[in-house]
Amino acid sequence: MLQGKVLVAQGGGPTAVINQSMVGVALEARRFSAVTNVYGARHGVRGIVNEDFVDLSQETAENLEAVAATPCAALGSTRDKPDLPYCQNILNVLKAHGIGTFFYIGGNDSSDTLRIVAEEARKAKYALTCIHIPKTIDNDLMVNDHTPGFGSAARFVASAFAGIDLDNEALTGVYVGVIMGRHAGFLTAASALARRYPGAGPHLIYLPERVFDTNKFLADVKRVNDQYKRCVIAVSEGIHDADGTPIISKLAGPNVERDAHGNVQLSGTGALADLLTDKIKNDLKIKRVRGDTFGYLQRSFLGCVSDSDQREAREVGSKAVQFAAFGKGDGTVTMHRIGNYAIDYRFTKLEEVAGKTKVMDDSMIASNSCDVTEAFLNYCRPLVGSTMPVATRLRSNPVAKILAK
Amino acid sequence: MLQGKVLVAQGGGPTAVINQSMVGVALEARRFSAVTNVYGARHGVRGIVNEDFVDLSQETAENLEAVAATPCAALGSTRDKPDLPYCQNILNVLKAHGIGTFFYIGGNDSSDTLRIVAEEARKAKYALTCIHIPKTIDNDLMVNDHTPGFGSAARFVASAFAGIDLDNEALTGVYVGVIMGRHAGFLTAASALARRYPGAGPHLIYLPERVFDTNKFLADVKRVNDQYKRCVIAVSEGIHDADGTPIISKLAGPNVERDAHGNVQLSGTGALADLLTDKIKNDLKIKRVRGDTFGYLQRSFLGCVSDSDQREAREVGSKAVQFAAFGKGDGTVTMHRIGNYAIDYRFTKLEEVAGKTKVMDDSMIASNSCDVTEAFLNYCRPLVGSTMPVATRLRSNPVAKILAK
Repeated sequence: MLQGKVLVAQGGGPTAVINQSMVGVALEARRFSAVTNVYGARHGVRGIVNEDFVDLSQETAENLEAVAATPCAALGSTRDKPDLPYCQNILNVLKAHGIGTFFYIGGNDSSDTLRIVAEEARKAKYALTCIHIPKTIDNDLMVNDHTPGFGSAARFVASAFAGIDLDNEALTGVYVGVIMGRHAGFLTAASALARRYPGAGPHLIYLPERVFDTNKFLADVKRVNDQYKRCVIAVSEGIHDADGTPIISKLAGPNVERDAHGNVQLSGTGALADLLTDKIKNDLKIKRVRGDTFGYLQRSFLGCVSDSDQREAREVGSKAVQFAAFGKGDGTVTMHRIGNYAIDYRFTKLEEVAGKTKVMDDSMIASNSCDVTEAFLNYCRPLVGSTMPVATRLRSNPVAKILAK
Repeated sequence: MLQGKVLVAQGGGPTAVINQSMVGVALEARRFSAVTNVYGARHGVRGIVNEDFVDLSQETAENLEAVAATPCAALGSTRDKPDLPYCQNILNVLKAHGIGTFFYIGGNDSSDTLRIVAEEARKAKYALTCIHIPKTIDNDLMVNDHTPGFGSAARFVASAFAGIDLDNEALTGVYVGVIMGRHAGFLTAASALARRYPGAGPHLIYLPERVFDTNKFLADVKRVNDQYKRCVIAVSEGIHDADGTPIISKLAGPNVERDAHGNVQLSGTGALADLLTDKIKNDLKIKRVRGDTFGYLQRSFLGCVSDSDQREAREVGSKAVQFAAFGKGDGTVTMHRIGNYAIDYRFTKLEEVAGKTKVMDDSMIASNSCDVTEAFLNYCRPLVGSTMPVATRLRSNPVAKILAK
């Protein structure tokens, strides 16, 4: 049953399409006449405990559609990871406001929060339905074929590397691009979609699913640079050594910043790219070595969005409302690939997604540990959208030399 | 007169539309029946002295159009800055191949090379017409209202900051984005086009046209952060102290990389962003401080292009061929703004552009030295194209608190 007040919130890192899911919830919920209000919590669960709500029922459909097409979390987000007392606070506020259905758009941390809140509601015999809506550029949620947000971020990374590779071909050298993803390499792997012609980059791709060995890395770079007189490299920010120590913290020493979970700060600093480019310069004696850290651009850039990602993010929001309306109980909406290529939305227990992390399957990673397979390319291609631009080269029509024969 | 063999080459840093100009030259030159071949030099002037030519006459119009829509220099580029003997070598090769017209697409260095080659040709009584075609994301060519390549790069920077500002609003903190531009701040200033709503970022913009004072910078950041509980900052890579010393080299010490001109390496390293974010963290005791260096993405990203920039870059190439065909002699094509908004192409002497640098006019820079004026916004707005996306916020419909009254 869907009636009274429903609440929607957004958690974790923003994506290009998280607002599509929020608007999907708002517009679909507004269709049910028993729903009196659709509330939005500002800055995720923190907005709930602070009773910081806005009434989305008073938004025009026109403005909601424009917000849906805008990247990042319009309601605001949070990095708070609620413990049990925090979750009990959430429940108290939901009860005080008479909220019967709570939609939380987020990753595996957000689904775990929802799992605890749902449990506390059952214990307190408060009639609450908790539905998780998947979202993450990391693409690391269990059960799901892929997650809303990933396709657009993958499109950004592929578009960036397509351009970078042309740039590197025009002014040759070695280039290192560092991409988000602490545990899962999907986003870094998406750089491979940039390759159209034989010999195009990225020539080397390093994923957190494989141990990073600096000596092998340098040998790989030397081999590619000897062959092509240039080398374009995609590196995940989460690369680590055999002990699991992030390469960046081996460099940064004790001053490295850690978050509430004790994780080393990987984004918002150029340190890893600078470390790797220095290593290549010093050890391989290559002169022109450049590094970029893609940073926040890859998850928020205005105007770089996958149309299929947009549609799916919207639909997963609408579907969440329908699952709530037709009495499925607490759970998460999961995305399943059928045929070639369509998506089926199913209702899955929170426990199957909550707090777990999916990484790339071995079949997607090349045996040399520095590339992806055709299986990954086929998996990823439909996700970046139908309007992905392509880069075109001149054909080779060489003119015979006259002076230097 | 346009007859026999014509040559086109691309120099300096790639842009999103430099291929439009190259294709404009090729397709327009192919219309003249007296033209036997259109050659392209691989990697700019270095391709000339190496006799590394391709015959663009053998390219299909279909492939040329696809290349035109592709960012970066399809012929390859170079950072070589030819001296007199190098220019005499260029002339020898042009003579050997019987090339009568040489189109060079590039910035102020490229136009200076062309000036020397043209002078040597006159001395040698070799009938050569040298036409410079403007190109640079830095927008720093004299005489021109703006240069092809700038509009698309400005669109990238504005799109990036529009997204970054939403991201920063969703997960608050201080953000520093470092943008290309050693002497001219146009590209950094374009970040201001990201602002749509009152209070939107970038809140602070630091240009190389003004002395960078670290104490004032910290006071600015504190003031904005106190007011908005967040702060988004755009910084030019070329910021320097009162003596003209780049801020980055004050940090980097003797190990800093320098190019052939003795300039400090500014791009392809995250050092400046990391320096500034560390300073803010340590001196202002603000916890969440993030920095990105936009790096090569801002000049090569596939799919981020201004439609007006595309059209103008194409036309400036076509116009160069027409100026050559109708006997104007050596010179450069310059772009002049007329009405609101149209572009007039004129023929200008190489000396007026060659080796000179234009910077932002004082009227474009706010009196507080950390923002731009309305005059700059009006100047820049038509350049980023007609299809620039906009970011939309939710409207404010707050819900009354129940528990915390």
